[in-house]
Amino acid sequence: MNAIIVAVGSEMLTPTRLDTNSLFLTQELNGLGIEVVEKCVVGDDRTRMTTAIERALANARLVIVTGGLGPTEDDVTRDAVAAALGVTQSVDEEVLTWIAGLFARMGRTMAENNKRQAMILQGAEILYNQRGTAPGQFIQTRDNVVLLLPGPPRELKPMFSEAALPKLRAMLPPMSIATRWYRVAGMGESDLDSLIAPVYTKYENPVTTILAKPGDVEIHLRARATDQADAERLCSEVADQIVPLLGERIYSDDGAPLELAVGRRLLARGETVAVAESCTGGLLGGRFTDAAGSSAWFRGGYIVYTVPLKEALIGGPLPDTAVSEATAQALAAAARDRAGATWGLSVTGFAGPDGDDVGSVWIGIAGPNEVFAKQLKWIGDRSRIRALAATTALNLLRLQLL
Amino acid sequence: MNAIIVAVGSEMLTPTRLDTNSLFLTQELNGLGIEVVEKCVVGDDRTRMTTAIERALANARLVIVTGGLGPTEDDVTRDAVAAALGVTQSVDEEVLTWIAGLFARMGRTMAENNKRQAMILQGAEILYNQRGTAPGQFIQTRDNVVLLLPGPPRELKPMFSEAALPKLRAMLPPMSIATRWYRVAGMGESDLDSLIAPVYTKYENPVTTILAKPGDVEIHLRARATDQADAERLCSEVADQIVPLLGERIYSDDGAPLELAVGRRLLARGETVAVAESCTGGLLGGRFTDAAGSSAWFRGGYIVYTVPLKEALIGGPLPDTAVSEATAQALAAAARDRAGATWGLSVTGFAGPDGDDVGSVWIGIAGPNEVFAKQLKWIGDRSRIRALAATTALNLLRLQLL
Repeated sequence: MNAIIVAVGSEMLTPTRLDTNSLFLTQELNGLGIEVVEKCVVGDDRTRMTTAIERALANARLVIVTGGLGPTEDDVTRDAVAAALGVTQSVDEEVLTWIAGLFARMGRTMAENNKRQAMILQGAEILYNQRGTAPGQFIQTRDNVVLLLPGPPRELKPMFSEAALPKLRAMLPPMSIATRWYRVAGMGESDLDSLIAPVYTKYENPVTTILAKPGDVEIHLRARATDQADAERLCSEVADQIVPLLGERIYSDDGAPLELAVGRRLLARGETVAVAESCTGGLLGGRFTDAAGSSAWFRGGYIVYTVPLKEALIGGPLPDTAVSEATAQALAAAARDRAGATWGLSVTGFAGPDGDDVGSVWIGIAGPNEVFAKQLKWIGDRSRIRALAATTALNLLRLQLL
Repeated sequence: MNAIIVAVGSEMLTPTRLDTNSLFLTQELNGLGIEVVEKCVVGDDRTRMTTAIERALANARLVIVTGGLGPTEDDVTRDAVAAALGVTQSVDEEVLTWIAGLFARMGRTMAENNKRQAMILQGAEILYNQRGTAPGQFIQTRDNVVLLLPGPPRELKPMFSEAALPKLRAMLPPMSIATRWYRVAGMGESDLDSLIAPVYTKYENPVTTILAKPGDVEIHLRARATDQADAERLCSEVADQIVPLLGERIYSDDGAPLELAVGRRLLARGETVAVAESCTGGLLGGRFTDAAGSSAWFRGGYIVYTVPLKEALIGGPLPDTAVSEATAQALAAAARDRAGATWGLSVTGFAGPDGDDVGSVWIGIAGPNEVFAKQLKWIGDRSRIRALAATTALNLLRLQLL
């Protein structure tokens, strides 16, 4: 079964608000084997809402409409759904009594417009609201299942989980989901895709998704089957072809970020690392210490943003210019030795924005038996170059620890 | 003019990702007097995308499609828009040369599939991408304006602001906008709102928006009028009431981030700063060096993640426990002295996740004439505590420099 989520409310069309109910609903629906194929936000406008719901009904079996069930004039979800489905609505006396009871318990009088909330679509099952006055509705037609839920998350979530989810589950064949999640470093999105597209494009199940950030690419596989073992087998069939193509460029298969992948290797070897940072100015240390428990393998380091601080760390004059192979090596070795770490990792380069050589970066690695440096060159703005430098330094150390 | 934003990408239909580009675009469009009447997220599915775009074209004059312009098989935005508009597309040799040039400058070979990015829709104007390989496209038909933008925010934002916005503005009746942008530190969102809401809620024009991040709140005012002087006058009327209420908690009125606000003050005084970081592990140095030109006032520092490194920096045993007033003071003074800076700024604390005292942090400041430390206590996860610690350290130094 496929689903479209329509979120109703003009406030979600402003520059500061997003519809976050859809994240919760997607999580729950995916667990049932229902894919969300589209999401939509519409304002409190009857005509726009009606056409949006008509389109959703034509494009997915399950349509979930959130919000717009309140008592005010601009809460027009019921009217729009009734129009799109071509059904009538009428006041349900039981719901009206229930709403009146809520007001009585709060010691308040029910406003006239709260009666609008007792309007129920023809053929709908009522989903009572444990946290508010707006009831939800569940409508099954020949072609569609339509679910109306209140907008406030604290009303929507329990109503979905307790009332709607069991009804949906009962309509579905048993369905299991298997997933794989690989994180890859040292390869751009398009190179990676060229490499693995010949494999994954042959399969509709699992679905493969590629996500890219500077220096970091994620591959998600999601397979569906009636049986968990079958779903796992479908995932494995694709994974077993992709993984050898990527080899050691895969740094994690459980979602762990790169700094944690490096930390785990260090921990397994009983080793530690220290850093010397020039153009990254602390970003690399910040990445290492993002990982909880990093004190087991990260010792600290030196932010050597000026030549005098570089010289103080090395304990003498720079062997070459500030951005050079020899300086990167000397900084890495000095960080290792001064911090008493197994490994020293250095970054020195031009992050810009000004200068002829912006994007040129040397990364130095000093290990128990080796000292070397690698030059890299990127285009982009200062923040991109700095982020790429930190990520690449982490990845070079990871490869060295393999 | 009305707009519909269609965000393309299956990853935004998962339980973990939202389309956030639409917030930026809505802000910018509202500034032109364009209202966003609907937003939609569709997966990388040619048929669904085509029908979604057809519906958008029928329901709004301006349709902005974000994402799906990459080189991979699942980047099918160009095809879907061409189908919805009923136009052809062809390889633009100039764009192809430009993309090939980008790869050449990076010393890489252009992958065959990158050529897909040179496919331009009939009648489209090309919007060159300063931060990536995917060009944007601007298409004007009898009934619609269609804008194709790349998905990554760092590519989308400058392309929209620099290339698309002037074209849109030229199509619209003259409208003047005046804005004010204040950034505030050391105050939570709800306290700030309680203080200034009695002022801004009296005005519909300018529109006031409050945005909050940990330790950092932004206030945006935006006034519209046919004449620039009138728009400025409307903004000033509200600003002149808000600014005195916030006083020195306002650290910037031109959008400058906190680290740059601190850097400018140092620069004006001809002074410099160095850091000693324990629980922030480099984040503070990373913040300082985010600012271009920071080498004029930031010297560097010491990531003292372990007790031996703290002792090595101080040049003797710790005066008290690792997280204490005396240690924070000693670290700040040692960073100042060793780096030869005017100011030393230190952070030592418990970022968690484990321990009885998670969220307790000492920040030390050593200046030309003073050494002191301040204790802070936050709740939240490791990343929130670390971010708050770095932001608060920056703000304490800023207040000291006033």
